[in-house]
Amino acid sequence: MAWPENVGIVALDIYLPNTYVDQVELEEFDGASKGKYTIGLGQTKMGFSSDREDIQSICLNAVQRLIDKTKIGYDRIGHLQVGTETIIDKSKSVKTCLMQLFEESGNHDVEGLDTTNACYGGTAALFNAISWIESSAWDGRYALVVAGDIAVYASGSARPTGGCGAVAMLIGPNAPLVFDRGLRGSFFSHAYDFYKPDLKSEFPVVDGKLSIQCYLQALDNCYRIYCNKFEAQAKKAGKKEKVTVDTFDAFCFHAPYCKLVQKSFARLYYNDLLHVPVDDIPSKFSGLENFRSMKPEETYFNRELEQAFMGLSKEDYEKKIKPSLHVSTNNGNMYTASLYGCLVSLLTSQTSKELAGQRVALFSYGSGLASTFYSLTIRGGEILDKLVSSLNNVRPEMEARVKVSPTDFAATLQLREDNCHKAPYVPAGNLEYLRPGTWYLKSIDDMYRRTYDRIPVQQNGLVQ
Amino acid sequence: MAWPENVGIVALDIYLPNTYVDQVELEEFDGASKGKYTIGLGQTKMGFSSDREDIQSICLNAVQRLIDKTKIGYDRIGHLQVGTETIIDKSKSVKTCLMQLFEESGNHDVEGLDTTNACYGGTAALFNAISWIESSAWDGRYALVVAGDIAVYASGSARPTGGCGAVAMLIGPNAPLVFDRGLRGSFFSHAYDFYKPDLKSEFPVVDGKLSIQCYLQALDNCYRIYCNKFEAQAKKAGKKEKVTVDTFDAFCFHAPYCKLVQKSFARLYYNDLLHVPVDDIPSKFSGLENFRSMKPEETYFNRELEQAFMGLSKEDYEKKIKPSLHVSTNNGNMYTASLYGCLVSLLTSQTSKELAGQRVALFSYGSGLASTFYSLTIRGGEILDKLVSSLNNVRPEMEARVKVSPTDFAATLQLREDNCHKAPYVPAGNLEYLRPGTWYLKSIDDMYRRTYDRIPVQQNGLVQ
Repeated sequence: MAWPENVGIVALDIYLPNTYVDQVELEEFDGASKGKYTIGLGQTKMGFSSDREDIQSICLNAVQRLIDKTKIGYDRIGHLQVGTETIIDKSKSVKTCLMQLFEESGNHDVEGLDTTNACYGGTAALFNAISWIESSAWDGRYALVVAGDIAVYASGSARPTGGCGAVAMLIGPNAPLVFDRGLRGSFFSHAYDFYKPDLKSEFPVVDGKLSIQCYLQALDNCYRIYCNKFEAQAKKAGKKEKVTVDTFDAFCFHAPYCKLVQKSFARLYYNDLLHVPVDDIPSKFSGLENFRSMKPEETYFNRELEQAFMGLSKEDYEKKIKPSLHVSTNNGNMYTASLYGCLVSLLTSQTSKELAGQRVALFSYGSGLASTFYSLTIRGGEILDKLVSSLNNVRPEMEARVKVSPTDFAATLQLREDNCHKAPYVPAGNLEYLRPGTWYLKSIDDMYRRTYDRIPVQQNGLVQ
Repeated sequence: MAWPENVGIVALDIYLPNTYVDQVELEEFDGASKGKYTIGLGQTKMGFSSDREDIQSICLNAVQRLIDKTKIGYDRIGHLQVGTETIIDKSKSVKTCLMQLFEESGNHDVEGLDTTNACYGGTAALFNAISWIESSAWDGRYALVVAGDIAVYASGSARPTGGCGAVAMLIGPNAPLVFDRGLRGSFFSHAYDFYKPDLKSEFPVVDGKLSIQCYLQALDNCYRIYCNKFEAQAKKAGKKEKVTVDTFDAFCFHAPYCKLVQKSFARLYYNDLLHVPVDDIPSKFSGLENFRSMKPEETYFNRELEQAFMGLSKEDYEKKIKPSLHVSTNNGNMYTASLYGCLVSLLTSQTSKELAGQRVALFSYGSGLASTFYSLTIRGGEILDKLVSSLNNVRPEMEARVKVSPTDFAATLQLREDNCHKAPYVPAGNLEYLRPGTWYLKSIDDMYRRTYDRIPVQQNGLVQ
């Protein structure tokens, strides 16, 4: 049997917490130098949630929003995968909690589980979902992928790189965002750059310098493998094509913080320079030829190299990367959801007419480490219009969030950490901060069983 | 493009700990009534490991054994999925630790992560691997699936249902064990029957009665959906076929303890009785017709019903189920690996000539809950001979394990629990109990980083 045509993202939606802390205020509160978070990291606001939200309520919200908007019945979903590293149970998956939403439809025949490795879980979930649709197990229904996380750090230098949120994606054929087939370059390795071995805590252990090196090394390798596959595919079709940054109209990168994405984008130029024959170096690289002879291990923290390629890529950065960083800049890192938050940002940055026909490169990175460079092509038409217009509320909703003072933010994170995995427990967080229709954690009983409730949905200005 | 032919298990191997406790001795030690564990649960021996083994070393061992035996190079694997609920890190996957074995081959382009939901993780990993091979992402290489767990319980009634081990499976086309396409009945729901919300501990929280009810309810539903799909597929091919227990030559069931499997097998007969027209009830059900009118919720703990169908299925149980229970009986539960340990048991119970042509039903259950009833067909020939003979060492190796007294077993479990997730830590377990070639946990440093070492491999009776 043939694979279905144009498999990709049919619809998607994002759930972000309704509270944020301002990074300028946080710099001051933390006694950090002015601009350390806003310029040094490239972050403006950071979304966070109280103990009223856990990974399950966040994913419930992302799915509820997507299904409400698309009006796709729960019986039309045959596969559900969750990517997360916000673990609240070693055994029970978030996926089974989401099955509560399917209850009314009577649909229990829904394969798929949670997939885990740091920020890469959403991508693995997505790839599994795509494969299912192309496999003999596919029964014509949609696959649903949810990537979500709560990113919180102990107070200190990593804290401003937190964030929170989830993205739900409906995967199927005839999609407006079509994954390019056979074009994935992956790099997996054993590393202890960022991990969460203290199971009592929500906070990770981070080797900051190693983490940056791992990210850049993974990007180098993934990009190289992607290029080789792309060029082999072209050759097979009788074409001689070479991949460079120019091959793509836009880029979405996993964004631990925006500045790293900018540096990484610059690194693609460095990679492009490495992979042209010496007699064929384009003029745009003139003056940079010497960097070709550096050993890879010397390049990761070389300021001169970094500055040179940051300069070279500056204009393209504004055009091809910045549109994808709106959520990251204004909400922070969402781990597994970060890359797909970038995709949402891109899709809310332009009209569907402008987006149609663009080829988008995506780089997914999860510490530990797991990474893939892949691509999709945006198909214009009514389905794209529909997808883009369904995201109209994302930016206004972000604008309307509640700003919380750094003092209250720190107190909230302390409340979370003190009560993380505690049972029995009744959350203390303020319900008034939650938007109408939001699922939240009601209580945890003495058997650690979690129950959720929902803020009433407003309709025509009235609470239902 | 067409899907490759005969996708299934090309090769598999099992890793079990080299120490066990005798269930008769454990009954006495625990002051339990004679036969409570051996007859009541159907368990004979229980494998366990000291703090020298963790989930990563166990999976390293399963993969190492399989790759050594098959002589498949690590560069010929393009996808690696791990199913486990033995979580030692919230973020870093076991899969990335296994990438150490790939290091020498230089192959880092290996997609796949860990999948989690109780004992079902191995099955989800397997389904993801099959889908990958049938998808546009497949590049002709093998997929590797590892299911492994350490099943330990707090002292009390659940403790004798522990166990430990991992199964590694090589998935590809032209396999001797071929998955029947389009034939999977799945049932997923939200339940708190068995889960692990106390992240500081290795022990689960169990609602024993609910767990049995969930298992049986899942089986009923999965079997019904499987039958419907099977019959629809037959109808499409112009045949009128009805699925009953007679459709299958053998059954492998997830085995929390062997007695539950026996009861569950009997329940398939009850299901068969429910789904024949009233005028068409086969004579084998005579005297049992009244059970048709019972409400489902009344059936799960009805002794009369249980005994009636246990009696009816007794002969078939010996023939079709018991051969698959060797590992479960003599090693205990291995959570995600349990079902695939049953498959190994089946394959080591008969000659390849006897196995050829058999249709095997598999029922995977993970609390929380996730479950699927599916099937495979055994293809005879040289590849089957090779697969079966590669498992020749499994039963002799199990026989040769070291028996440990219940006192030492209890002390070992206490040692594990006291030091679970501790850092820095140097394990205290006796290395002499480990077989030559075994990977083990050497130490955990103050950054929680784990390092592993290997017992020297014996060759010709000499340690290398």
